[in-house]
Amino acid sequence: MTEQHPQAPAPPDAAPVLRVGVLGAGTVGTQVIRLLGEQGPEFAARSGARLEITGIAVRDLDAPRGPAVPRELLTTDAIAVATSNDLVIELIGGIEPARTLILAAFKAGASVITGNKALIAAHGPELYAAAEAADTDFYYEAAVAGAIPVVYALRESMAGDRVTSVLGIVNGTTNYILDEMSAKGLSFEEALACAQELGYAEADPTADVDGLDAAAKAAIIASLAFHTRVGLDDVTVEGIRSITARDIREAHASGCEIKLLAIAQRRDDDHARGISVRVHPALVPADHPLASVHGAFNAVLVEAESAGRLMFYGQGAGGAPTASAVLSDVVAAAAHRVHGGRAPRESCYADLPILGPESAITRYQIQLRVDDKPGSLAALAGAFAVNNVSINSVRQNEYVGVEQAIVTIVTHPAPVFHLDAAVEALRREKRVLGVVSVRRVEGE
Amino acid sequence: MTEQHPQAPAPPDAAPVLRVGVLGAGTVGTQVIRLLGEQGPEFAARSGARLEITGIAVRDLDAPRGPAVPRELLTTDAIAVATSNDLVIELIGGIEPARTLILAAFKAGASVITGNKALIAAHGPELYAAAEAADTDFYYEAAVAGAIPVVYALRESMAGDRVTSVLGIVNGTTNYILDEMSAKGLSFEEALACAQELGYAEADPTADVDGLDAAAKAAIIASLAFHTRVGLDDVTVEGIRSITARDIREAHASGCEIKLLAIAQRRDDDHARGISVRVHPALVPADHPLASVHGAFNAVLVEAESAGRLMFYGQGAGGAPTASAVLSDVVAAAAHRVHGGRAPRESCYADLPILGPESAITRYQIQLRVDDKPGSLAALAGAFAVNNVSINSVRQNEYVGVEQAIVTIVTHPAPVFHLDAAVEALRREKRVLGVVSVRRVEGE
Repeated sequence: MTEQHPQAPAPPDAAPVLRVGVLGAGTVGTQVIRLLGEQGPEFAARSGARLEITGIAVRDLDAPRGPAVPRELLTTDAIAVATSNDLVIELIGGIEPARTLILAAFKAGASVITGNKALIAAHGPELYAAAEAADTDFYYEAAVAGAIPVVYALRESMAGDRVTSVLGIVNGTTNYILDEMSAKGLSFEEALACAQELGYAEADPTADVDGLDAAAKAAIIASLAFHTRVGLDDVTVEGIRSITARDIREAHASGCEIKLLAIAQRRDDDHARGISVRVHPALVPADHPLASVHGAFNAVLVEAESAGRLMFYGQGAGGAPTASAVLSDVVAAAAHRVHGGRAPRESCYADLPILGPESAITRYQIQLRVDDKPGSLAALAGAFAVNNVSINSVRQNEYVGVEQAIVTIVTHPAPVFHLDAAVEALRREKRVLGVVSVRRVEGE
Repeated sequence: MTEQHPQAPAPPDAAPVLRVGVLGAGTVGTQVIRLLGEQGPEFAARSGARLEITGIAVRDLDAPRGPAVPRELLTTDAIAVATSNDLVIELIGGIEPARTLILAAFKAGASVITGNKALIAAHGPELYAAAEAADTDFYYEAAVAGAIPVVYALRESMAGDRVTSVLGIVNGTTNYILDEMSAKGLSFEEALACAQELGYAEADPTADVDGLDAAAKAAIIASLAFHTRVGLDDVTVEGIRSITARDIREAHASGCEIKLLAIAQRRDDDHARGISVRVHPALVPADHPLASVHGAFNAVLVEAESAGRLMFYGQGAGGAPTASAVLSDVVAAAAHRVHGGRAPRESCYADLPILGPESAITRYQIQLRVDDKPGSLAALAGAFAVNNVSINSVRQNEYVGVEQAIVTIVTHPAPVFHLDAAVEALRREKRVLGVVSVRRVEGE
């Protein structure tokens, strides 16, 4: 079972043994179990403890599993695994029974490592409180963006700075679908079918394509970035079902890609103070770093007052990458049990107000069909100006008929109610023959 | 002095005070002092301690300084500042007196935060041992790539994985110079003069352009990635002084950019076992993520067995970004003093052999002037094959005369001695009229 690696030292016999319980032996669980076996001596050298799996809780003892999962450790008694170990790794997913098991593990004095974004977004404060009461660790690096250490970056690396915004591609399924649509001109339905065939999308793709998975991650990101409790209900969500092949073609014509973004922004200006957290598709200029994030990869851009812009990029899902994140947490939690110390606690001291969708400030791209006569541009510009929306660029794309043209306008960042008022004014303007599209643009 | 930020809570009066000493008030020191004032309440909320600067050691009390540096805290008695505080922040740089001051600080029981890459590359083990003896923290996130959390990523996020290679652009000055040469067709001397004028390069640019700064960072990166002691002397270094405008033009013609790379690779194959650490210019294909790292930005690519490829990108230098990294370490060290726990200790359990430059495995681009007759290509291919170098691509660029052509060959990764033997064979081959260039290529 344990294959000795040339790099690994024999663990010192004096190293204490920590008992490890694993809840769930799916894709990620199988990899975690395999790596705990193969790289055990290395984890021991790094943490100061030998990690010994004592039980693996599964729903079905007879389901087919890889050779890395030792049959003799399988059990259906999840509560026993949760309550009889030093470290409990929860990889079941979903709300229940994961929540009950984690609370029981804390009550039994265990440190808990999970990758369960839905559970944290829904019950984070309760889980943090249970860890606090038990004086043990609660780690969840794998909950956001797989192997990319986003949770750590926000929770610890940014502790000496003030984060102003986080912009991320955090759902590989939707990024894969949009990427296929972009590269091959497929419709949403065709690209979804491809993703399902390749195993990138579930048979029921709702959690991914409707943005719910990204929203849970956005809530976690915003909580950490802004030291404020943010739950799933605080996130404004729009998925990608309505994106058409034509939308993508038009985005390309404007030099952009369409990406599903998770966005957490702090506002502290004359109009609003608080944080805006949302998930929606947006145009991203082709030369923006997020535009070139392809396939199932994830990327997160953090902007902070002192650090400026940081970008983190890597595999956001998959058994081995997610296991890498889980195991870094396992090593950290094990080291704390040996040497003392603890993971950062919930930090919600800032307690900033959560702003509604109306407070989002974003750039917009508006395409208009206009009467191509002298003075039209001045009339358009006027409609934006009186509504306090400032224009970044204007481009005339194509002639669509006699004395008609399509004009594409990109604004500077503006609140949605200003934009709505400007669009309303444009509809009333006689030189505007039609509003073709209104889209959000992120990234500068 | 302390400007209350709307996000910041009043620190609980019960929070203990930690005494902070700052050694050096240059560009980074000034920003650290300013931020400790402005964001004190936030750091208190995150660490559990109020941080109070008790002394700032400088060489010249009367040097001009910004308003953020309180005159009354300045002193020339650096040893007093080093030995009378809970946290000591060393921002003097260089080996001495920084080394003596840090050792004195540990002896006095302080936790030490530094950004001093040269000192760590030269005396890391001694500093770690002093921290161990004092049972306090030793942090140095700012030593590599400014605000980008590379040290943390390697020291903690990769603790659950096996790193196979790290490839980084870690020196902003040389990247700026190469970028200017690439964008504007400047010579090295012209681009260096620009960089000096803008303050991106020192009057004496040796440490940057000869690769020594990057080599110190490469040593730190390799130590952390491979749990092995790597010092500056273990790094093979070649700078960018010899790169010409013509080299850049030729790189462009091959679809590449030239970048100065810090490289740390693990080898564990039939031919070698150990690690190769080096800094040298290399061709990077234009579609590789490192090719689009512009100006003074830094980027680090980490490849690990489970995580796959991760990339970290951001500002690698400058007062505020570097201060952000220093302050994240300050918050972590402060939290440990309040709540217990400690920073990871030196981890050199793997103790892998350091391989010489002859063991580096890299791809090469070879440009040859050849006799353009049937059979030439077969002859070239033969010279590579008999020397165990496998060819990735062959391209005929241009005709340079009657029946002469320039052929560009890119190999698969090969050891340098195989490559040398192949080039020797090519020189003896009668259809080869000349070897135009041999360059390393990194990134696939």
